[in-house]
Amino acid sequence: MIDCGEGTQLQLRRSKLKFARLNHVFISHIHGDHCFGLIGMISTFSMLGRTADLHVYAPEALEPVLRLELATFCRGLEFQVVFHAHPGGHALIYEDRSVAVYTIPLSHRVPSTGFLFCEKPVLPHIRRDMVDYLGIPFYAIQSIKEGAGWTTADGRVVPHERLVFPAEAPRRYAYCSDTTYLPRLADYVKGVDLLFHEATFGEDNRARAAETFHSTAKQAAMLARDAGVKRLLIGHYSARYTDERVLLDEAREMFPETQLAEEGMVLPI
Amino acid sequence: MIDCGEGTQLQLRRSKLKFARLNHVFISHIHGDHCFGLIGMISTFSMLGRTADLHVYAPEALEPVLRLELATFCRGLEFQVVFHAHPGGHALIYEDRSVAVYTIPLSHRVPSTGFLFCEKPVLPHIRRDMVDYLGIPFYAIQSIKEGAGWTTADGRVVPHERLVFPAEAPRRYAYCSDTTYLPRLADYVKGVDLLFHEATFGEDNRARAAETFHSTAKQAAMLARDAGVKRLLIGHYSARYTDERVLLDEAREMFPETQLAEEGMVLPI
Repeated sequence: MIDCGEGTQLQLRRSKLKFARLNHVFISHIHGDHCFGLIGMISTFSMLGRTADLHVYAPEALEPVLRLELATFCRGLEFQVVFHAHPGGHALIYEDRSVAVYTIPLSHRVPSTGFLFCEKPVLPHIRRDMVDYLGIPFYAIQSIKEGAGWTTADGRVVPHERLVFPAEAPRRYAYCSDTTYLPRLADYVKGVDLLFHEATFGEDNRARAAETFHSTAKQAAMLARDAGVKRLLIGHYSARYTDERVLLDEAREMFPETQLAEEGMVLPI
Repeated sequence: MIDCGEGTQLQLRRSKLKFARLNHVFISHIHGDHCFGLIGMISTFSMLGRTADLHVYAPEALEPVLRLELATFCRGLEFQVVFHAHPGGHALIYEDRSVAVYTIPLSHRVPSTGFLFCEKPVLPHIRRDMVDYLGIPFYAIQSIKEGAGWTTADGRVVPHERLVFPAEAPRRYAYCSDTTYLPRLADYVKGVDLLFHEATFGEDNRARAAETFHSTAKQAAMLARDAGVKRLLIGHYSARYTDERVLLDEAREMFPETQLAEEGMVLPI
């Protein structure tokens, strides 16, 4: 989960996602719309009998208040809330066998951090037709997926490349909110499959965006274009925009592959 | 405002009530569904430019966490959050010229307090027909409302009672949640115009109600009956009841003037 504003537990319930599958929460910065839902979600997990640790990656300023909230509201919690303070800069903060997560340094009124989720490369898929044709035994398949070829009974060597279909390219997702427009972010998010970037304002409020350390839709699109990302998702709109299509139009002029984030949206990558 | 669970600021916005008119928040106990919305609401008030003090009446255990939340999330707040720890027992905790608020000692898993809101008696209404008939001047009206009679130019004394309509009886509202069933609460809420009492469970879960220090709908109704209240409003239902009419039926059997509390309900007293 990335960020956890007030009411997140309700949205999570509406999403039908299994609560138990959530083990890592990444908090970008300590403004309320990004973290006030954490204590309520943790309380609810506790009431539902959770026992698995929950890892929270957040600015260090959040730790004392979260600790006191837990001590005050969640006595006898049967799982650990493991707090990981952001190390600053562009750093690896989480890794397992399928994904690595890096911080992206942003610039906002308080310390703010974006996140880059990098799927790890997966092995190529074995070609079933070749397995059948050559009579390759089951025990040999893993080593072929890992790069080996196959030598037939009559000594003919079939190279690895003929035995597999290439794996899908590892997917990458970047999340950048809240932040002023930072052209240098292009280095961190270069070529990602999906970039979420805040677009609090339109060009009509470009000065206000700079003053409040937010971005305009057009600036988000400039970043997407300069980083050569595949798709851009904009969100975090100011309440003054009752119709966000003006933001979408401004972004698409610069970067056509832009979409508006919506409540409850599911976006396959 | 009585209690402030997560998402209260959203409900407050939907209610169309003016945020600036809210100056006093009464928190019954420090379970999340009764207080997790406080920091978000205060943050939003701050962003909207509030300058008037906000008074919070709550169990003393809430103060350190609220103070740290304010220091962490609401730097430069332009209004005071004035914290009033519950004194315990049945005590006057707020008073102005139109209302007095008393605590009601409840019994829950953590210290929990109900609230009794007592409207102050208002002066009777002057009878315009008598004012016109007797030619009573404007300057005399306030003293008549306060109890005086009127002496006509020819010395005839018209008694106070003939010059006024009696005022409406002062209204009283009691809020009791969360609490185990406490028959002694009848003394505190005797004859109130409206009693809100929690009814977390039905009779099918009477044992569970006792274990968790909650009440059943029937118990709420027994209290309403024993206290001779005018109307009972039940709420705080366990999520296991998808249709709360079973709770309503059980309560009405004991106390017919019962209603189910609903999200966003407006109930004139």
